[in-house]
Amino acid sequence: MIANTLFILAPVGSAIALVFAYIFYIKMKKKDAGNETMREIADWVKEGAKTYLKRQYKVVAIFFLFAFIFFIILSFVLGVQSKWTPFAFLTGGFFSGLAGFLGMMTATTASSRTTQGARTSLNQALQIAFRSGAVMGLVVVGLGLLDISMWFIILKYIVKMPDLTSITTIMLTFGMGASSMALFARVGGGIFTKAADVGADLVGKIEAGIPEDDPRNPGTIADNVGDNVGDVAGMGADLYESYCGSILATAALGASAFLGTGIQLNAVVLPMLIAGIGIVLSIFGIYLVKTNEDATQKTLLKALSRGVNVSALLILVVSAFFVNLLLKGNGIVNPWGIWGSMVVGLIAGILIGKSTEYFTSSEFKPTKGIAEQSLTGHATVIINGLAVGMESAGFPVIIISFGIIIAFGLAGGFTSLVTGLYGIGLAAVGMLSTLGITLATDAYGPIADNAGGNAEMSKLGPEVRKRTDALDSLGNTTAATGKGFAIGSAALTAMALLAAYLEEIKMGFLHIGTTTIKIAGQTTNVAETSFTDLINYYDVTLMNPKVLVGVFIGAMLAFVFVALTMKAVGKVAGKMVEEIRHQFENIKGILKGETKPDYQKAILISTKGAQHEMLFPSLLAIFVPILVGLILGVAGVMGMLVGGLTTGFSLAIMLNNAGGAWDNAKKYVEEGHHGGKGSDQHSALVVGDTVGDPCKDTSGPSLNILIKLISMVSVVVAGLTVAYSPAIQKFLGIF
Amino acid sequence: MIANTLFILAPVGSAIALVFAYIFYIKMKKKDAGNETMREIADWVKEGAKTYLKRQYKVVAIFFLFAFIFFIILSFVLGVQSKWTPFAFLTGGFFSGLAGFLGMMTATTASSRTTQGARTSLNQALQIAFRSGAVMGLVVVGLGLLDISMWFIILKYIVKMPDLTSITTIMLTFGMGASSMALFARVGGGIFTKAADVGADLVGKIEAGIPEDDPRNPGTIADNVGDNVGDVAGMGADLYESYCGSILATAALGASAFLGTGIQLNAVVLPMLIAGIGIVLSIFGIYLVKTNEDATQKTLLKALSRGVNVSALLILVVSAFFVNLLLKGNGIVNPWGIWGSMVVGLIAGILIGKSTEYFTSSEFKPTKGIAEQSLTGHATVIINGLAVGMESAGFPVIIISFGIIIAFGLAGGFTSLVTGLYGIGLAAVGMLSTLGITLATDAYGPIADNAGGNAEMSKLGPEVRKRTDALDSLGNTTAATGKGFAIGSAALTAMALLAAYLEEIKMGFLHIGTTTIKIAGQTTNVAETSFTDLINYYDVTLMNPKVLVGVFIGAMLAFVFVALTMKAVGKVAGKMVEEIRHQFENIKGILKGETKPDYQKAILISTKGAQHEMLFPSLLAIFVPILVGLILGVAGVMGMLVGGLTTGFSLAIMLNNAGGAWDNAKKYVEEGHHGGKGSDQHSALVVGDTVGDPCKDTSGPSLNILIKLISMVSVVVAGLTVAYSPAIQKFLGIF
Repeated sequence: MIANTLFILAPVGSAIALVFAYIFYIKMKKKDAGNETMREIADWVKEGAKTYLKRQYKVVAIFFLFAFIFFIILSFVLGVQSKWTPFAFLTGGFFSGLAGFLGMMTATTASSRTTQGARTSLNQALQIAFRSGAVMGLVVVGLGLLDISMWFIILKYIVKMPDLTSITTIMLTFGMGASSMALFARVGGGIFTKAADVGADLVGKIEAGIPEDDPRNPGTIADNVGDNVGDVAGMGADLYESYCGSILATAALGASAFLGTGIQLNAVVLPMLIAGIGIVLSIFGIYLVKTNEDATQKTLLKALSRGVNVSALLILVVSAFFVNLLLKGNGIVNPWGIWGSMVVGLIAGILIGKSTEYFTSSEFKPTKGIAEQSLTGHATVIINGLAVGMESAGFPVIIISFGIIIAFGLAGGFTSLVTGLYGIGLAAVGMLSTLGITLATDAYGPIADNAGGNAEMSKLGPEVRKRTDALDSLGNTTAATGKGFAIGSAALTAMALLAAYLEEIKMGFLHIGTTTIKIAGQTTNVAETSFTDLINYYDVTLMNPKVLVGVFIGAMLAFVFVALTMKAVGKVAGKMVEEIRHQFENIKGILKGETKPDYQKAILISTKGAQHEMLFPSLLAIFVPILVGLILGVAGVMGMLVGGLTTGFSLAIMLNNAGGAWDNAKKYVEEGHHGGKGSDQHSALVVGDTVGDPCKDTSGPSLNILIKLISMVSVVVAGLTVAYSPAIQKFLGIF
Repeated sequence: MIANTLFILAPVGSAIALVFAYIFYIKMKKKDAGNETMREIADWVKEGAKTYLKRQYKVVAIFFLFAFIFFIILSFVLGVQSKWTPFAFLTGGFFSGLAGFLGMMTATTASSRTTQGARTSLNQALQIAFRSGAVMGLVVVGLGLLDISMWFIILKYIVKMPDLTSITTIMLTFGMGASSMALFARVGGGIFTKAADVGADLVGKIEAGIPEDDPRNPGTIADNVGDNVGDVAGMGADLYESYCGSILATAALGASAFLGTGIQLNAVVLPMLIAGIGIVLSIFGIYLVKTNEDATQKTLLKALSRGVNVSALLILVVSAFFVNLLLKGNGIVNPWGIWGSMVVGLIAGILIGKSTEYFTSSEFKPTKGIAEQSLTGHATVIINGLAVGMESAGFPVIIISFGIIIAFGLAGGFTSLVTGLYGIGLAAVGMLSTLGITLATDAYGPIADNAGGNAEMSKLGPEVRKRTDALDSLGNTTAATGKGFAIGSAALTAMALLAAYLEEIKMGFLHIGTTTIKIAGQTTNVAETSFTDLINYYDVTLMNPKVLVGVFIGAMLAFVFVALTMKAVGKVAGKMVEEIRHQFENIKGILKGETKPDYQKAILISTKGAQHEMLFPSLLAIFVPILVGLILGVAGVMGMLVGGLTTGFSLAIMLNNAGGAWDNAKKYVEEGHHGGKGSDQHSALVVGDTVGDPCKDTSGPSLNILIKLISMVSVVVAGLTVAYSPAIQKFLGIF
């Protein structure tokens, strides 16, 4: 079997990623870390971030322990799911956390070195920041593919489980582990960073009138810590989850789509293979990002784009070869069609990124419009920003709609449902295949941001800050594309997971020993049921009120989740405000710069607050799917997943783009338009920016994860739903 | 047939409503209209409102003309729908517009009389305002039931169409006419009123520092006109549409559910009958609203509640009798179950109202929390308000979910799908059966508001304004319940329309001469297909990507629609700001009160702006369903309807409640909390209130209508979809 041979490329790719990540890290660490002040500040930030993550992992460990026990009960006592589930779940969480931790360690180590680099030239700073971002990118894809390969090797080659469907559905479980960890990291980190940011700004900038990142502000270190735990560690865990989720869901669909054919294994291995190729070619792209010493912002952007584009193109070319090798002449599906689905995914990701750029960059009308509204005051800035955010959901939905239909169609979906769904899954894999390098362009933004903070606090010359600012703003443009990939892949993966859920339902029947079910009066062998059979069995149609109620609940869940996370930021920010005010009042000489503020105290407040506030929304995302499954059954769950996906998608884009647009409208005015810094217009836009902060850095990105986590939870507890929901529904009279 | 006899109660009920409306109107008109200034001001407002409505109807007439021609082509040239459709469509629009116009005329006549009443006592003012509100309520239900009865009489008794299914589906067309008119009225009126309000406040209150409703402000008359064209005429058209929609959809479901049984006619007549009874008992309730002269705000609220509650209870008791009379012993469905569905609807409406009250009244935590956030500035007020709005979607979704499942179950839905859906329809009818009186308690708010404005401008003593304010704030509490009924009934009606859509698809086949279709390989007679058959034929399941894309588009449509309407308010308000600034600068003595401002000019700006801006979002709501139908077919349309309904529901509640909570938080601070009027805290909340204005008075309520309009449009063009989407899909390769 060729697939058995080619599969080796997956673990090899993962190993290469980790080796290169290590090399980049070591090289970066050898760079000059700057003068004593710079190193001291960097150490504070690093310590703060470590403290936070340690505490976070402790809280999360308790959650994982309980979940583990719950799964042990489901697997070993109730017997409704595979005995491998609890362990797969744990490794997913562990590796996701590890990816975040390593990324954060790299970022905090890189910041003062980037500052030091910026003292020489823009290019020096870029090299350090970008290579450090690449460490993050490679760690995420390396650990992701490592976990996947490891479980595939264990189940297929060591335990020698013969049934690929079982293997791939068990592997999905570790996706839930990764998603749970990611949600905690995004929500917790997001609350931490925005509470510190908002709190420090409200008292520092607005009340005390001192600049941002001023060392006199007790919240300033917490703010920089926040960038690391939220934007770096949070994003790392987030994309780890997206990456694994897309590969796992597609592999599971491959097993279903080609069940009983000679190419089942090939279809399962294909997404892992593409991921492996993607890693190698991403590293190639990373090496292409070079400029000469007198580089301008424009040439830098070109250099970045060149790296990403070359990687993407090469991946498409090479994968065309492998797709044909694995799927050629099978008589079921045209390999070029499958490859086409991949291409569609990649293009959709790029287009969504372009749309994000249009709505959030101050070069275009929407953001300029918000800036203009500042002439009529605070309220119109907010109204217009909300409207721009909502409006910006339009294009991405149209793009993703076309993407879904075309990817589905190219993969033969209009003649065979499952191959079409497999195509949608591969579109997500294609979209994320360049993650090694795109994440690098995304993650170096916060590093540059921190480097700027370090420059400010170390009182280096303005040219240093200017250079780090140039890098930071460059990062904003590339981040727009990154966000497009994140939300786009979330939508496609969630669609693939919807199908994987049905596969898991089938497994659930087999676990509880039900081998035949009656569909439309006919007794059917469970092992041979198709997705369509199960859809009919559970009546997952739009006329079933359970489905409709499910959609209502899914849509509502997205809104309530956003409400809770936004409120959390407000609450913790409030505590931060009190603490900073308290320090300003009670520590003598603090505002004159004679006494150092108590940075630790501020960090502690954000840490405690974030831990406390992240629990409820995260648990909600886990318990609602379980409850819906038990009460409304499979039909209700599928409705809920669709409602959560569609509303969550539009809502996430709205929050991300409104936040981005306010931020850039503020910067636009700071550049001197409509009255410039210090004007009433500027103050109206500062309010807009502050409102946008939790939108774009806490609630919006968390929704990406929520969309997949509710799917993952449903997939994992499918056995429970199969086993108990009929009895519960009978008891309630709703069957 | 007993149903033929009992049906007479519907036209009789409608006639009684109109007669009483006339009596109340005449009595109100005889009251003292106050001194010359008061009458003069009232006349300005009345003239402004008339001017606006005339212009609005002109624009809308053009739309209706085009739509009429389009329907003529569909009916007579393409032959894809009944030849009655174009005419039914027109009458729906006409009566809806008439209801709005009469309501507005009554309200503008009542305002100075209410002011005059308030010079005597609170009770005097209440009597005039409430009875005038009752005119509005009775006109809406009277005209609604008149239109329904008229068409039923024409089609059933004059043309003697034998097929009840055809009759009820033709009648649905006039629902589309009513919905289109309602959307124009709500969106146009909403833009007018909020642009005037926001514009007048921004320049008057904030820049010039003069109080609200000050006659020196050129925007002040426009603001009062806005209350009438937005809150009164807009709301009238809106609820006319809800009322007719629920009855028509339920009648259509009755025809399907009991096809071929002896009680088909009974089931069709039942919702009309309940509506007729509801009218009579609402009038009874209206007469119960009386207090003595020394009434306080509390006793007034008690009096209002007594009226509503007694009406509701009597309707339940009497309808229990009629439901049993019409549906007893039919062997298909338990009449008590059907009656139970009605009760469930009414209870759900009340509970959603209570939830609205909790989230928006300053007596409870959420609004108090927003007020408290003003201590940390503008941004936290906005963040918290948005969060409260989103959070407040939680309960109503749970309530409506329970409502749907229970109403469906009680009506036997778990054994027979169609009777269950009929139950859901009846729940909506039950919810709206008290509309005659609940609308009265809703509509008198804007009348009291206008009376207050009149008192201010006529420089009457502060005790007059205090009394009208008391009435106004009382109106806010009762309006909360009204809003609960409006959104709750929208959800239930939309669900019923989903089923009606399938019925219309069946009709579509017959119109184009297709009498048999192949379902799962078997040739089936179209006339005999069930909803389940059609669902299978079109594969309206959650694994069909067309359905999923439809849900995505529906959810997105809600967001984009809100964005467009919010932006429209911003744009027109901007023009208003310019005009008012211009007048302040160029008309000498205007701020000293020596020269009168040019009120007409301000009204004209709001009028023109509203007309111009209302078109695009309204047309979007009409064209998207047509396009989705042609490209994605029936599966896509149903997905879109579900996506629009579920997202629209949560989004509408979010916008309504966030707006309400900001408004009341501001009032709470004005009462002296957290620094009171004029403090920084107050100014932060004024911003919140201004942001909330378009949310709660333009976009939010318009969403109610959008949800149903997209359903209505889909229902009406179902024939077009049936006839042409297969060829289009074949051409695009998506079949």
